[in-house]
Amino acid sequence: SDIKSVLFWRDVLVEVLATAILLIWITFSFVTFNPEHYQPNTTTLGLLVGMVVFILIEALGPYSGCHMNPAVTLGFFLNGHLSIARAILYTIAQCAGGAGGSALVYALTPSSRHHMFHAILPHPEVALAQAVGHECIFTFLLVFTALFLTLPNRKSVNPGFPLGFCVGTSIMSAGTFSGSTLNPVVALGPAVISRNFQDYWVYWVGPMTGSLIAFLLFKAI
Amino acid sequence: SDIKSVLFWRDVLVEVLATAILLIWITFSFVTFNPEHYQPNTTTLGLLVGMVVFILIEALGPYSGCHMNPAVTLGFFLNGHLSIARAILYTIAQCAGGAGGSALVYALTPSSRHHMFHAILPHPEVALAQAVGHECIFTFLLVFTALFLTLPNRKSVNPGFPLGFCVGTSIMSAGTFSGSTLNPVVALGPAVISRNFQDYWVYWVGPMTGSLIAFLLFKAI
Amino acid sequence: SDIKSVLFWRDVLVEVLATAILLIWITFSFVTFNPEHYQPNTTTLGLLVGMVVFILIEALGPYSGCHMNPAVTLGFFLNGHLSIARAILYTIAQCAGGAGGSALVYALTPSSRHHMFHAILPHPEVALAQAVGHECIFTFLLVFTALFLTLPNRKSVNPGFPLGFCVGTSIMSAGTFSGSTLNPVVALGPAVISRNFQDYWVYWVGPMTGSLIAFLLFKAI
Amino acid sequence: SDIKSVLFWRDVLVEVLATAILLIWITFSFVTFNPEHYQPNTTTLGLLVGMVVFILIEALGPYSGCHMNPAVTLGFFLNGHLSIARAILYTIAQCAGGAGGSALVYALTPSSRHHMFHAILPHPEVALAQAVGHECIFTFLLVFTALFLTLPNRKSVNPGFPLGFCVGTSIMSAGTFSGSTLNPVVALGPAVISRNFQDYWVYWVGPMTGSLIAFLLFKAI
Repeated sequence: SDIKSVLFWRDVLVEVLATAILLIWITFSFVTFNPEHYQPNTTTLGLLVGMVVFILIEALGPYSGCHMNPAVTLGFFLNGHLSIARAILYTIAQCAGGAGGSALVYALTPSSRHHMFHAILPHPEVALAQAVGHECIFTFLLVFTALFLTLPNRKSVNPGFPLGFCVGTSIMSAGTFSGSTLNPVVALGPAVISRNFQDYWVYWVGPMTGSLIAFLLFKAI
Repeated sequence: SDIKSVLFWRDVLVEVLATAILLIWITFSFVTFNPEHYQPNTTTLGLLVGMVVFILIEALGPYSGCHMNPAVTLGFFLNGHLSIARAILYTIAQCAGGAGGSALVYALTPSSRHHMFHAILPHPEVALAQAVGHECIFTFLLVFTALFLTLPNRKSVNPGFPLGFCVGTSIMSAGTFSGSTLNPVVALGPAVISRNFQDYWVYWVGPMTGSLIAFLLFKAI
Repeated sequence: SDIKSVLFWRDVLVEVLATAILLIWITFSFVTFNPEHYQPNTTTLGLLVGMVVFILIEALGPYSGCHMNPAVTLGFFLNGHLSIARAILYTIAQCAGGAGGSALVYALTPSSRHHMFHAILPHPEVALAQAVGHECIFTFLLVFTALFLTLPNRKSVNPGFPLGFCVGTSIMSAGTFSGSTLNPVVALGPAVISRNFQDYWVYWVGPMTGSLIAFLLFKAI
Repeated sequence: SDIKSVLFWRDVLVEVLATAILLIWITFSFVTFNPEHYQPNTTTLGLLVGMVVFILIEALGPYSGCHMNPAVTLGFFLNGHLSIARAILYTIAQCAGGAGGSALVYALTPSSRHHMFHAILPHPEVALAQAVGHECIFTFLLVFTALFLTLPNRKSVNPGFPLGFCVGTSIMSAGTFSGSTLNPVVALGPAVISRNFQDYWVYWVGPMTGSLIAFLLFKAI
């Protein structure tokens, strides 16, 4: 019944839009390298992505929840915030938005920079099992924090700050190891435009496992 | 009738003042380069401009709305927040304030640094149509977010954070490509003191189009 | 009697969890060095640790208080917020969580990077008495601020910001001198995995003394 | 009569304490240079000083107002918030706290670093009249914003953010030109320990003039 309402589809479109914006902001950082003014590093990326997450949660959170992330959707689904139909559609919407956002950046980038697009990959020194562990731990804190913010007595907290900071600090702390996506869709956009899905499963297994652990520990406390 | 009131002209002067302060803070960054202590980069500029936007919205927002930006004024005009007379006067006030702020920095800068003033221009590798696209997308999110913050149930949100973050993240993400002004007036001040209006139309067409799209999408949701 | 309740042990486990997360985020920064994307510096570390403190206080503060720090626990114990049994168990929990968090990072780090783990030590030019003084002053402000935030008329303040900023600014200001841990447990995790407890007492004497002075001055005002 | 109360003297001591802490955090940055981990720059200093100002206003603002700055005290005195006796004593307290804070850092610094203490001076290329203008403009925005935050309908705003951001953005924007102290006492501490009062008057004339202009413009709006 939920699936037949206008609000359901509005919320799905909000997820497409929010995830597209998130990926536009992130993907631009791959190609705007300029020795004098911008050199990509995880400090800047952490601040950048954390602030974009804040903006989108503040602007669009009251509609769909502004998950922008299948792992967050999984956590809220397990905790009973949304139906299975909504969870599946949100996940599809996020994948579409993420791939679309990165594709739009591709169109807006001079061809002289196209070689700078690249997939998000674990660092060569890091074993895949370790990369899964990194993604799992960092996503754990994100979903764990998000679940606490849904408790009735926490409603007054400005949710964009703790959630944006979760993403930002994860990138600053270990972004050079696993990429610190915390999100299969963040890895999807760059993978699509660089046509490189090597080790891409890491960014599903790690975040989804982290979300599951976050739900279990949240319930235990 | 609005135009005859004292409050109307006070609000116009507030726009002059706020835009002048915004441009003073930004324009100083062009000439204070110092290899040991300050090297201009889009991370610092993003933080700097985002925080100045926050301050001005918090201090002066309750008077004129503290738009400081013809694209923001367009979005609020389309959404019925202000009259056509007020929108036109705000735009003129913003241009005057922006040019005046940059001119004040010129007067306060040693002549040995005058060669460091420069217009904000798209990166040579970026096609003008792409630069218009960049300005359009980033301004879209700014105006889109600003419109949501006017909804009655959002009044409690501290508006300086999401709006300051919109400006800051845009500069961090693609500042080296189009300049990420999101605002014709931010490009105006540097253009006036460096007497270089090359490609200046980009900073009107991009932001105004982004504002129009933001209004249309806001209405659709 | 407190010690027999379920809530008591839940709060102790929350301290284990929160301190472990804090040390996971910090310890990763030791080994993720990458010349292009991440170079460890006290600006990034200050932002990173400040934001993690914010997240944890927002998510878990309503349970145990989320001290994550024996010096903070001492200050709240002196001010009558918790029993001696709770204070002792919290301190043990924090030590266990801190060591466990760092050990988890060790397991998730490629062996090619294991040599990069190192104890937090005062800078060789700094006398140990000076390092104690640094830790004492910076912890003083942290505990002093935390005590003010418990006053009935301050409840509305979002406590993660001032407390996260205390930690962040201390690292930025003098992190290269004493390490600016403000916390015996932050030094414990790295000491355990690098098996180097040289001068480790500095990180107990300095913060605990700072906490005592903060309590005395708070009472005087 | 105010001068005979206990609260009056408590507030004066709070100004001593707050200004001392502000100068401890700032002065440490002069000597903790370390090529690998900390290189002084105005981005870090802006973030650092802005966050310290935030902490102190949140913790101690409800007592003395936590001015920490004779220019802020002047603005509030002109606007009728405090008596002439309180304004004079606050100014003396701020000078004593600032000099004392810097002296404490001197005592906690290895003698091998004592040569790194230096007075805050205008950049050699900047004329003194220009440096006065810089200090005047940046202090103007600080006091202007502070006065708006005292309006009855603004009480809910968290004052540490706009005021901390005023200080932080001023340092980022033009810190390498005039020093962007916005505050005679910030220049006093370093001047005392380096025994160099050259051009020190700039840091009184600029900020006090800026405060006067802020008061006049605030009254006009």
